[in-house]
Amino acid sequence: MNLAPSNDAAIGIFDSGFGGLTVMDAIRRVLPHENLLYLGDTARVPYGNKTPQTIIRYSNACASLLVSRGIKALVIACNTASAHAVEELRERYDIPVFGVIQPVAQFAQALSKSGHIAVIGTRATVTSGAYVRALKRYRPELQISQTACPLFVPLVEEGWCSHPVTDMVCREYLGDIARTTADTIILACTHYPLLRHSIVKCLDELGHHAQLCDCASSTADYVRKTLAKANLMRQHGEGEYKYLVTDDPHNFVRLGQSLMKARFDDVEHVDL
Amino acid sequence: MNLAPSNDAAIGIFDSGFGGLTVMDAIRRVLPHENLLYLGDTARVPYGNKTPQTIIRYSNACASLLVSRGIKALVIACNTASAHAVEELRERYDIPVFGVIQPVAQFAQALSKSGHIAVIGTRATVTSGAYVRALKRYRPELQISQTACPLFVPLVEEGWCSHPVTDMVCREYLGDIARTTADTIILACTHYPLLRHSIVKCLDELGHHAQLCDCASSTADYVRKTLAKANLMRQHGEGEYKYLVTDDPHNFVRLGQSLMKARFDDVEHVDL
Repeated sequence: MNLAPSNDAAIGIFDSGFGGLTVMDAIRRVLPHENLLYLGDTARVPYGNKTPQTIIRYSNACASLLVSRGIKALVIACNTASAHAVEELRERYDIPVFGVIQPVAQFAQALSKSGHIAVIGTRATVTSGAYVRALKRYRPELQISQTACPLFVPLVEEGWCSHPVTDMVCREYLGDIARTTADTIILACTHYPLLRHSIVKCLDELGHHAQLCDCASSTADYVRKTLAKANLMRQHGEGEYKYLVTDDPHNFVRLGQSLMKARFDDVEHVDL
Repeated sequence: MNLAPSNDAAIGIFDSGFGGLTVMDAIRRVLPHENLLYLGDTARVPYGNKTPQTIIRYSNACASLLVSRGIKALVIACNTASAHAVEELRERYDIPVFGVIQPVAQFAQALSKSGHIAVIGTRATVTSGAYVRALKRYRPELQISQTACPLFVPLVEEGWCSHPVTDMVCREYLGDIARTTADTIILACTHYPLLRHSIVKCLDELGHHAQLCDCASSTADYVRKTLAKANLMRQHGEGEYKYLVTDDPHNFVRLGQSLMKARFDDVEHVDL
């Protein structure tokens, strides 16, 4: 007999590394009573330059580990993994499974007045076409420009979130978008909100005005509404946060502390 | 009964990705009769920002796969893996096991007149201290400066080997070295020879004159001498080349062809 997890069970969240902490942070804000269990697959980061088969295999391993810890819901806090593995994980598990793509796509399409949306993400996310499908489901007439920005994640992981090199890389990657009528830009990677300042500055210099949408807050809102509807919310108490990482926790904690101002009281190494 | 591999057996070469092809290319030049079997662990690339435990685990898996294919010698064509796993792999296997660090260290220390050598590599290679130990074994009085350059590998993999962003990153990483008396710089990552042009230009602009040493040719020479001494060389025929990759071969072939001008007639996907 399978017992359904209680409302006190944690929400499981996974990402290839520490970028998904931006999503966890947003969930913490809108659902302060929830216990959260985060898994960063730091031994195999990044996912964004790998192939669908490999990304699906790694996502399955992450989800399986979190489910074995008794979570009540699963958030794929990684665009690359969401782009390739959300359907498969939904079929495999009975608990609610959330990707980060659909919520931000829904939010962004409602925001765009010009009917032209730009998507920037990893190479794997862009080539998956997942954003194009998600956006066109709401507004089939939308024009969508996609740009892969493979250096953005390494720049964040180097700690160069505000740096002349990052500004120059932004100009290189965003130049084409700035020549379009796109009035809404989706930051389709959980690392990218950490580059928001550089991205905004670059678009300003290029004379382009657009609204930036990141996945974190729209995903968190979507999780909140869904859990409420399914009577799965934890109503009282302060949420507890636990972190699992597949490589040594040191670098994860260092980056998380310096870039996210997060506290890491409970970090455990796991093998996948 | 363990049968020793014949001289026709291949030399196995592994790297976290395609950077080790620079070493393979050098081996091919000095040992044209040898069959070469290359393994790129592209599903888990990069190794350079991971911890020793994870790097050793991955290196063991790579070596074990190659040995199961009947190789007669093993080259760890990755500085990060050489820094952490060479001793363990030597103990584990009866065949000759070569890392890329000792040969280039021996070459570089003999070259330096100022007695000051700079080492640039991944974070894992630099923090391992493997180059400091290897160099001081020859000349204990050497002064050694080390700089981690985590963005160099992503820049190569983006194909930006000669690009204004790469020039700017070089100035950032090499500025400190240019203020030292180092007259010899070790490119302690198999990707870095592909940035040689940018590195040289940057040092010129900074008014610093130093000789660059990469691992490829010194490792190839060392392999040649050792195989000759052990009577393990293949004496006749044209060498055959086979490639194994843990992620989809497409990206590996694309990068290899564009950056190395290599041909890939026989590429196989393997799971690790």
